[in-house]
Amino acid sequence: MRILGIDPGSNLTGFGVVERVGARVVHCAHGTLRALRGAPLPERLAALQVALAAVIAEHRPEAAVVEQVFVAASPRSALVLGQARGVVLATAATAGLPVSEFSAQEIKLAVVGTGRAEKVQVQAMVRQLLALERAPAADAADALAAALCLAHQGPLAALAVGRARRRSSARGSGLRRRGGGFVVRLSR
Amino acid sequence: MRILGIDPGSNLTGFGVVERVGARVVHCAHGTLRALRGAPLPERLAALQVALAAVIAEHRPEAAVVEQVFVAASPRSALVLGQARGVVLATAATAGLPVSEFSAQEIKLAVVGTGRAEKVQVQAMVRQLLALERAPAADAADALAAALCLAHQGPLAALAVGRARRRSSARGSGLRRRGGGFVVRLSR
Repeated sequence: MRILGIDPGSNLTGFGVVERVGARVVHCAHGTLRALRGAPLPERLAALQVALAAVIAEHRPEAAVVEQVFVAASPRSALVLGQARGVVLATAATAGLPVSEFSAQEIKLAVVGTGRAEKVQVQAMVRQLLALERAPAADAADALAAALCLAHQGPLAALAVGRARRRSSARGSGLRRRGGGFVVRLSR
Repeated sequence: MRILGIDPGSNLTGFGVVERVGARVVHCAHGTLRALRGAPLPERLAALQVALAAVIAEHRPEAAVVEQVFVAASPRSALVLGQARGVVLATAATAGLPVSEFSAQEIKLAVVGTGRAEKVQVQAMVRQLLALERAPAADAADALAAALCLAHQGPLAALAVGRARRRSSARGSGLRRRGGGFVVRLSR
């Protein structure tokens, strides 16, 4: 099973792809989608959508994982993060991927062994677990850690993801009929 | 010039389309995109994307307007609003529309004549200005008010939107070459 982890951000969005082969988890790819600072927000978000859809098309993951967000420093930063996060969630769901969410604590616990690990510990453990030559940048490391967290849930989790995907596909076809998650009310 | 106003929300997203014909502004359509409560967030956001893209394809606006957001009640509500707002902005930009933003105060000032108008006053003025049989629902009224605000900016604003659109199209073609607002860094 191939898993895409995504760490959304308004300037940098990290992604990481891992594959579980039997009991082993192997590294496929990781990287950072970086917004050009000058572009207006709507175009940056559209570009994030395009770039992430291209990553999904290239690596064909069967599931996506995004870190859950409970708190943000301020309403302003929550809005900015939310905008990128919304695009990421919609893009993954549009591609037919079931999207799992884990808290930062769950991800750190699964990868480092403690829910209070520092960023640099996450980077080091991701490097070691996936036998990478060097530690990935922080955003890509967080994305890989999220993917590892789902991959390490074991066969039961894979089963759940399989179920979610089937349910998601059924809903997806509903969307194409415009009856999906949204009801459209029109007045002329 | 045909203008699409959008009022994004996690459960309800209002939209309104108006057209400026000479010095007059006429109503084309309005409505509400309503999320089905049961669906998971990623699918609801994907459905919002699909529904809004369908509205754009049907009404072919030349510009979009979204209310600017400065403050939110809490980081939690800012995140939730931001997720829907990000999808809306990305969808409009992907369709090649220049996206203008006005503060709630600017919109109320343009439509009601005072920046501190109540929701019900906005609904009543939108109804009167567009000669509607009945007042639109609050979200659709806000979307129509935003569209009216841009429409009433006069020929100078239209010129600015024209410029923005040309610039936007140039950038849009950049996106299709994957060079748009995002730089992709890959590691394998």
